[in-house]
Amino acid sequence: MKIGIIGLGLMGGSLAKTLKKLGGYEVFGYDIDETTMLKADMLGAINGELTVDTAKDLDMLIVSLYPSGFLSSVERFLPVLKDGTIITDFCGIKRQTMADMRELAKKYPNLVFIGGHPMAGREFSGIDRSVSTLFEKASMILTNVNADIFVLEEVKNFYLSLGFGEVVITTPEYHDRAIAFTSQLCHIVSNAFIKNEIASEHFGYSAGSYKDLTRVARLNPEMWAELMTMNKDNLSKELDELIGNLIKYSEALKKGNKAELKQLLSEGNDRKLLIDSRKK
Amino acid sequence: MKIGIIGLGLMGGSLAKTLKKLGGYEVFGYDIDETTMLKADMLGAINGELTVDTAKDLDMLIVSLYPSGFLSSVERFLPVLKDGTIITDFCGIKRQTMADMRELAKKYPNLVFIGGHPMAGREFSGIDRSVSTLFEKASMILTNVNADIFVLEEVKNFYLSLGFGEVVITTPEYHDRAIAFTSQLCHIVSNAFIKNEIASEHFGYSAGSYKDLTRVARLNPEMWAELMTMNKDNLSKELDELIGNLIKYSEALKKGNKAELKQLLSEGNDRKLLIDSRKK
Repeated sequence: MKIGIIGLGLMGGSLAKTLKKLGGYEVFGYDIDETTMLKADMLGAINGELTVDTAKDLDMLIVSLYPSGFLSSVERFLPVLKDGTIITDFCGIKRQTMADMRELAKKYPNLVFIGGHPMAGREFSGIDRSVSTLFEKASMILTNVNADIFVLEEVKNFYLSLGFGEVVITTPEYHDRAIAFTSQLCHIVSNAFIKNEIASEHFGYSAGSYKDLTRVARLNPEMWAELMTMNKDNLSKELDELIGNLIKYSEALKKGNKAELKQLLSEGNDRKLLIDSRKK
Repeated sequence: MKIGIIGLGLMGGSLAKTLKKLGGYEVFGYDIDETTMLKADMLGAINGELTVDTAKDLDMLIVSLYPSGFLSSVERFLPVLKDGTIITDFCGIKRQTMADMRELAKKYPNLVFIGGHPMAGREFSGIDRSVSTLFEKASMILTNVNADIFVLEEVKNFYLSLGFGEVVITTPEYHDRAIAFTSQLCHIVSNAFIKNEIASEHFGYSAGSYKDLTRVARLNPEMWAELMTMNKDNLSKELDELIGNLIKYSEALKKGNKAELKQLLSEGNDRKLLIDSRKK
C-alpha cells in the first residue's frame, strides 16, 4: 500500500514511523521544513519525498498540518491523484476542513475524503519527538463528507491496524463541541495555571497534582491559537462555564463557608465517580 | 525504635506499611474506625494498638489526621509520653497546627514538635488504598516550633530513610501559601472542570490532557473542605489570580483575536519552559 503524508511533525512523523514499523507500506512524505525532510529520510521513516510525481499512484493521502495549511496543500496534489485515492487528515478542528473539502468536491467530484483527528499527542512538537507508539490504544475520530460506507470501513480498519484502540464516527459539529472541552480547554487551563506568581517557587512543595495540572501548559502557541480561534464559539462557551463554576468555589471560600465548599467539592467528586463508572 | 501513629488512613496506613517493610520499628497505631484498626492488624502494618499504655515509651508519635482532629488526639497522649518523645504530623495545613502546638507547649514545656506535610497522596483514601511506596522520591515539608537543630536533623533523616526524595524546612506561613497553589488550587480546578455539562460525553473524544486535568476531581470532600477553609486567605488569592488569567483567554477568544490568544499561550508556554528549566 502506498501512502503519502503531508506534514512530518510530531503527528505526521509518528504516523510515518508507525507505518514503517508495521511494514508493508511505501511511505512518501512532504514537509515544508528541509531539516524535517532530511531527518525523516535519515530515520528511515519515509521511502521518499512526496511530489506531484510520487503522488500519482497513492492509495491514501494523509494531511497532518495546521488547519491553515490544509487547503492549499491538498489542492497541490489533487490534480495528480488517481481515482479512488482516499484523502484523510489529522486536523484538530473539523467544521472548517470538512467545509473546505465540500467546496473542493465541487471541482473534483471523485474526491474521497474522510476527516480524522487522532486523540493522541504530547506536550512536545516536531519529528524529533515523534514515536511509533503515539497512537497505541488512542481513540481516532472520523468525520465523513461524501465517502461511502465501504471506504469508511476501510479507513476505520486502517487506523485500527495502526494500533488505535477505537474509532469513533461523528459529525464535524459534534467533534468540535466535544474537543473544545476534552482538549482545548485543558490546554488553556494548564497554560493559565502556570501563570500564578507563586508557580516559580513550587520546587519541594509539589507532587502529582501540580505535575498533572501543568503538563500541557507547554504547547505550540501558533497551532493552538489557530485551532482555538477556529473553534471560538464552542471553546468560549466551555471556558465561561468553567470560570462560572470556579467563581462559586471562590465565593464559598471568601465567606469561609466550609459546608458550602464541601457541597461544591462533593458535587465534583460525585460527578467524577459517576463519569468514571461509565467507562467501558 | 518505637513509633506511634494516630490515624491509619491513606497516609497513616502507608506510613505504617513503609515502617514494617523497612523493619526495625515497633509500630503502634490508632484509628477511630474499628474496621480500619482490624485491617491494620490483619495486614501486619502495626504491632498493636496505640493506647495510653503503649504510648508510654514511644520514641516518636506521628499524627496523620484531618486538622480538626489533631489537637484533641495529641492532648490524649501528651500526659503519658516520656520526655524526649518527638511529635510530628502529616497535616496539610501548618499555621493552625503549629499554633495549637505552641499553646500546648505552655502546658507541656518539654513537648518536642516538628510539623510535617508529605507531598504525596493519591486520589483515593483509606487504609485499603495505602501503599508502602507512597513516599518514594516525594518531598517532605517540615516546620519547626521549638525543637533544637539536632532533633530537626533526626526527623529529617528519619523521613529520608523512609524513601522521601528531599526534605524542605520552612515556616508555617510559607508552607500554607505555597500549598494553596501547588495542591489545593489543583484540586479545585480539577473538581470544577469535571462539572462542565459535556464532560459526561467525553468517551472516545479524550486523551491524556483530559485524564490529567480530571484525576484529582475525585477527592475526600470533608477533608479538603476543612483544609481549604483553614487556608482561605491564601487559596482564594490563588484562585482569583487564576480566574483573572482565564478571563483574559476568554476575552481574546470572544473577539476572535488570534494574535492576542497566541500571545497569551506563548506567555504560558515560556513560563512553563522557564520553570521546568530550573529543575534540579
